Amino acid sequence: MALTGVLRPGHVAIRVLDMKAALKHYVDVLGLIETARDPTTRRVFLKAWDEHDHHSVVLRETDRAGMDYMGWKVDSPATLKKLAADVEKSGLCSDLGWIAAGEHPATGERFRFTVPTGHVMELFAERGQVGNDCGTDGPNLNPTPWPDGLKGIAASRFDHCLLYGEDLDGSVKLFREVFGFGLAEQVIGGPDNEVMIGAFLSCSNKAHDVAFIRAPVKGKFHHASFELGSWEKVLHAGDVLSRNKTSIDLGPTRHGITRGETIYFFDPSGNRNEVFCGGYIYYPDKPTLTWTEDELGAAIFYHDRKLNDAFLSVFT
Amino acid sequence: MALTGVLRPGHVAIRVLDMKAALKHYVDVLGLIETARDPTTRRVFLKAWDEHDHHSVVLRETDRAGMDYMGWKVDSPATLKKLAADVEKSGLCSDLGWIAAGEHPATGERFRFTVPTGHVMELFAERGQVGNDCGTDGPNLNPTPWPDGLKGIAASRFDHCLLYGEDLDGSVKLFREVFGFGLAEQVIGGPDNEVMIGAFLSCSNKAHDVAFIRAPVKGKFHHASFELGSWEKVLHAGDVLSRNKTSIDLGPTRHGITRGETIYFFDPSGNRNEVFCGGYIYYPDKPTLTWTEDELGAAIFYHDRKLNDAFLSVFT
Amino acid sequence: MALTGVLRPGHVAIRVLDMKAALKHYVDVLGLIETARDPTTRRVFLKAWDEHDHHSVVLRETDRAGMDYMGWKVDSPATLKKLAADVEKSGLCSDLGWIAAGEHPATGERFRFTVPTGHVMELFAERGQVGNDCGTDGPNLNPTPWPDGLKGIAASRFDHCLLYGEDLDGSVKLFREVFGFGLAEQVIGGPDNEVMIGAFLSCSNKAHDVAFIRAPVKGKFHHASFELGSWEKVLHAGDVLSRNKTSIDLGPTRHGITRGETIYFFDPSGNRNEVFCGGYIYYPDKPTLTWTEDELGAAIFYHDRKLNDAFLSVFT
Amino acid sequence: MALTGVLRPGHVAIRVLDMKAALKHYVDVLGLIETARDPTTRRVFLKAWDEHDHHSVVLRETDRAGMDYMGWKVDSPATLKKLAADVEKSGLCSDLGWIAAGEHPATGERFRFTVPTGHVMELFAERGQVGNDCGTDGPNLNPTPWPDGLKGIAASRFDHCLLYGEDLDGSVKLFREVFGFGLAEQVIGGPDNEVMIGAFLSCSNKAHDVAFIRAPVKGKFHHASFELGSWEKVLHAGDVLSRNKTSIDLGPTRHGITRGETIYFFDPSGNRNEVFCGGYIYYPDKPTLTWTEDELGAAIFYHDRKLNDAFLSVFT
Repeated sequence: MALTGVLRPGHVAIRVLDMKAALKHYVDVLGLIETARDPTTRRVFLKAWDEHDHHSVVLRETDRAGMDYMGWKVDSPATLKKLAADVEKSGLCSDLGWIAAGEHPATGERFRFTVPTGHVMELFAERGQVGNDCGTDGPNLNPTPWPDGLKGIAASRFDHCLLYGEDLDGSVKLFREVFGFGLAEQVIGGPDNEVMIGAFLSCSNKAHDVAFIRAPVKGKFHHASFELGSWEKVLHAGDVLSRNKTSIDLGPTRHGITRGETIYFFDPSGNRNEVFCGGYIYYPDKPTLTWTEDELGAAIFYHDRKLNDAFLSVFT
Repeated sequence: MALTGVLRPGHVAIRVLDMKAALKHYVDVLGLIETARDPTTRRVFLKAWDEHDHHSVVLRETDRAGMDYMGWKVDSPATLKKLAADVEKSGLCSDLGWIAAGEHPATGERFRFTVPTGHVMELFAERGQVGNDCGTDGPNLNPTPWPDGLKGIAASRFDHCLLYGEDLDGSVKLFREVFGFGLAEQVIGGPDNEVMIGAFLSCSNKAHDVAFIRAPVKGKFHHASFELGSWEKVLHAGDVLSRNKTSIDLGPTRHGITRGETIYFFDPSGNRNEVFCGGYIYYPDKPTLTWTEDELGAAIFYHDRKLNDAFLSVFT
Repeated sequence: MALTGVLRPGHVAIRVLDMKAALKHYVDVLGLIETARDPTTRRVFLKAWDEHDHHSVVLRETDRAGMDYMGWKVDSPATLKKLAADVEKSGLCSDLGWIAAGEHPATGERFRFTVPTGHVMELFAERGQVGNDCGTDGPNLNPTPWPDGLKGIAASRFDHCLLYGEDLDGSVKLFREVFGFGLAEQVIGGPDNEVMIGAFLSCSNKAHDVAFIRAPVKGKFHHASFELGSWEKVLHAGDVLSRNKTSIDLGPTRHGITRGETIYFFDPSGNRNEVFCGGYIYYPDKPTLTWTEDELGAAIFYHDRKLNDAFLSVFT
Repeated sequence: MALTGVLRPGHVAIRVLDMKAALKHYVDVLGLIETARDPTTRRVFLKAWDEHDHHSVVLRETDRAGMDYMGWKVDSPATLKKLAADVEKSGLCSDLGWIAAGEHPATGERFRFTVPTGHVMELFAERGQVGNDCGTDGPNLNPTPWPDGLKGIAASRFDHCLLYGEDLDGSVKLFREVFGFGLAEQVIGGPDNEVMIGAFLSCSNKAHDVAFIRAPVKGKFHHASFELGSWEKVLHAGDVLSRNKTSIDLGPTRHGITRGETIYFFDPSGNRNEVFCGGYIYYPDKPTLTWTEDELGAAIFYHDRKLNDAFLSVFT
């Protein structure tokens, strides 16, 4: 985790147009597990199989796709208080406020704010654990390497989001200086390569926990990404997606950035998902990798070495 | 092998525009091994590492890309004579004739003919063996699973060609009835699905040894395919191709037809290559798999479920 | 297939001590599919998912483990008659006779005989097909690469048997000279390496369809092997076996012989099974690979380079 | 990293009996890269390809195998000072002292101490970076996913050590309470399962950075482990080891503990090495996984479900 106590992306709340179709996608195809449902707010809460916390994905049925917010789990209530104060002090965010405990099931209070790129983010410290069903003699006792009965792609974790917005510098400053993230990779451009176009930020040993791309929009959602254990599981994911006639955006392929092996696809509402594996082990003392704009194609899709039409133009 | 005694695709002769660039591609990138060179005819002979015969790929430098011819190894000189007579008797082929032994290095006489789709084919029975360098105590004694010193993609075998031509029915009739190939898969179309659009033919337990696509052209070459041992090697191939800035056509992905896992790319002259792995074990009593034209996208590229622009329009 | 018309190992009949336990193993763990049951003879018939024929494994409940017989599918009734006559003429076999059509469900008449190593073998030409459940618009129409609902290890095919017996030379002579098999690999030993200790025989492009090891016994069964598509599936198999507390003999590892990637384990009656992937593409003109007795360890278990205690001593 | 600022295992210093044989092993077989040599102290410094720091492995030629010491990189000189004081204050360690900057090439001062299990450990904050040779337009600019010219197994990182000693409780207390490590997994035994037999400790998102096994010895070394990217690379490692006739201890297989996929082998001096891939993503709020002694076999070697003879008895 970051020295600030930020542990990981704890949840992403995604807007869907039709909950039934969404659940078919997120449960039967992607393989998430439903853990709670809130009919009043038209929300369903899900987790990936290898997560212990109660939920990591929140689907909300409404009339417009996109991301409601992304939440970050921190290591203690004290850290939560401290970081909330730091966010306020930074002056970088707007719409600061607290969400009461229980608004998410099994979850303590959350501190909410809007980052400079226009995305709503949250911090929280407490969430009940429901386990990963691997223990054979108790919840965490003598475990098997994977549980029985997984569905579809069987993604193991919610991993990160890629987000589009204009004030990239502001959001990067927030995550680096207030939350202590490292800049694992960046894309630079402009006449003298003086503009940061993309930032891949890590609060862990993963190659990224959140990424931002500079674009003349506010609060846009490019994709939510889920982890798989191997390149063969990426192939299996492609097979499952095709069998279900899920719209695939691109892949299987390798990313230049993070080295991950990936496939992009769309949920029935048009929100992009990714499942991926691989990538290096990141440490705060690892040099930032830099991509120049002329190598942007290889940076994103290492094999094709060019962007597909959708990458820059389709988001929710 | 087929009951007729046809063993396998024994060679493909490809025209290249610049031999130096071609060798960089076929040797350093694809990983074939040069075994002979004939400056007079501007030809270079190569083999893949796990083939025992002297060569399986012939490159010829000239001013137009494409395939000169494809050769089939048969199990004996008697079979060669018998099949040459059968080809003649069939009346399906034109330009029949014998090529003297030695015209290819280490190779006996070849019987050459043009099949109904306009492709030049050959039969031959004899070729010297140079081994696969796996033996540790002699050429085929106490072998290792793979030899040291392989380059680039390290394709293990020349596997098949996909060819475009108008008289699909004629070429299919020749391969099935004269050469004893099985029709592993077919694509059908037309108003009542009465037209065979594609035929995937096998003389072995491989899913295909040659394939034909109906197209209003004569003797055109879509790709020559080389075998890899695993999906991870397909990823590695993609990485090697990108590192060498080789033009990738599509992939990594899965084919619907044959189930193979694949990546397509172009040599510097514009000839398409494939490396692939996987696919089922074919037997003559296996039912022919049929794809309808409306599923052509999934048949070719199972994940995308649609053809890319190049598949039908780019060939040499 | 061999030029003689022998297609493949068509079935193996295995004796089990307890049918209920055996079915848990062969269906739930190995992933075979039950296609028929014959209470009178206490037999259950099964197939692997990617086989089209009605069955490939016959389990019979009795008081002693081991192999009842192994069956070979040939390409036509004419071939069956011809090969039956050839077996008789060879003088190599004993206990020749015909089994009436229908004694196996969906199966024509079988010619049965005992080979020199003491194993009962059969030839047959006709068996009904039940398909592999991949077609989406009909049995073999617009298929998916794999069907839904597979269980456990999900072995795709019955592949070969390894058998122990004294008169190795006799059985090798029969398979090579009467059935037209190629000798893909051999192990040789004795003071001057003049004794063949093991023979790996192929009637296909697979590295082996049956193998014999010389041992001072008669008609003994070392293992029946089933095919998997990848090394990752071998890992998955190991996980499934451990989860089910199935006794694993050795692996995952690589074989030196055939290069296959493998795991050995025991059914509840003590019969050894193998699941494996990989290996080269065999052709009749491929040189025989030879292993000397001092390299026997590496030949069998390439990583350990030594046999485990069970390999030579445990069979049924 | 841990909140204390401990980043990772920064080096392991291993004693070897013959430097020439050791380098053949660590460079040609394991694939490490030599970065410096100190003839006076008979030491050679090496790094794995995907590490950026100057070195992570130190070999010293002497007359007894084993581990000299293990070093931990921390995030800053201030952390180094703080943790050195904390170690002293803890009273858990003996033989505390500072090693001058430069005693290791390209390395700042190191704080050395002996932990309760008898192992010499070090903390350090500064080490020069030599990069991973992936940048195509500069050291960290427009990188490829892997560099050219890797040798043998091509291990990507030094990952962790497993150490044997009597006072397990003391070392666990030190790493948890002073260094802030999490207890990812434990093995418990004794009449009432009240004794911790093994502890797998993480200062990162890896499943472990160091592990201790209780044994009636002092300062003993079980293995140093190196990371690979995939299960296929574990197979490749097994092939490379066999080709070089390296003594393999066990594997390829899966560990129950950490879920990693692994192969164990010995360097020419009898020091055990591991290469592995996989395992889950660890977080400090992940519940500790517990194995009971009766499941120790499955905990260590998940497929065999039993220890081999060497695991508990062979160490250096």
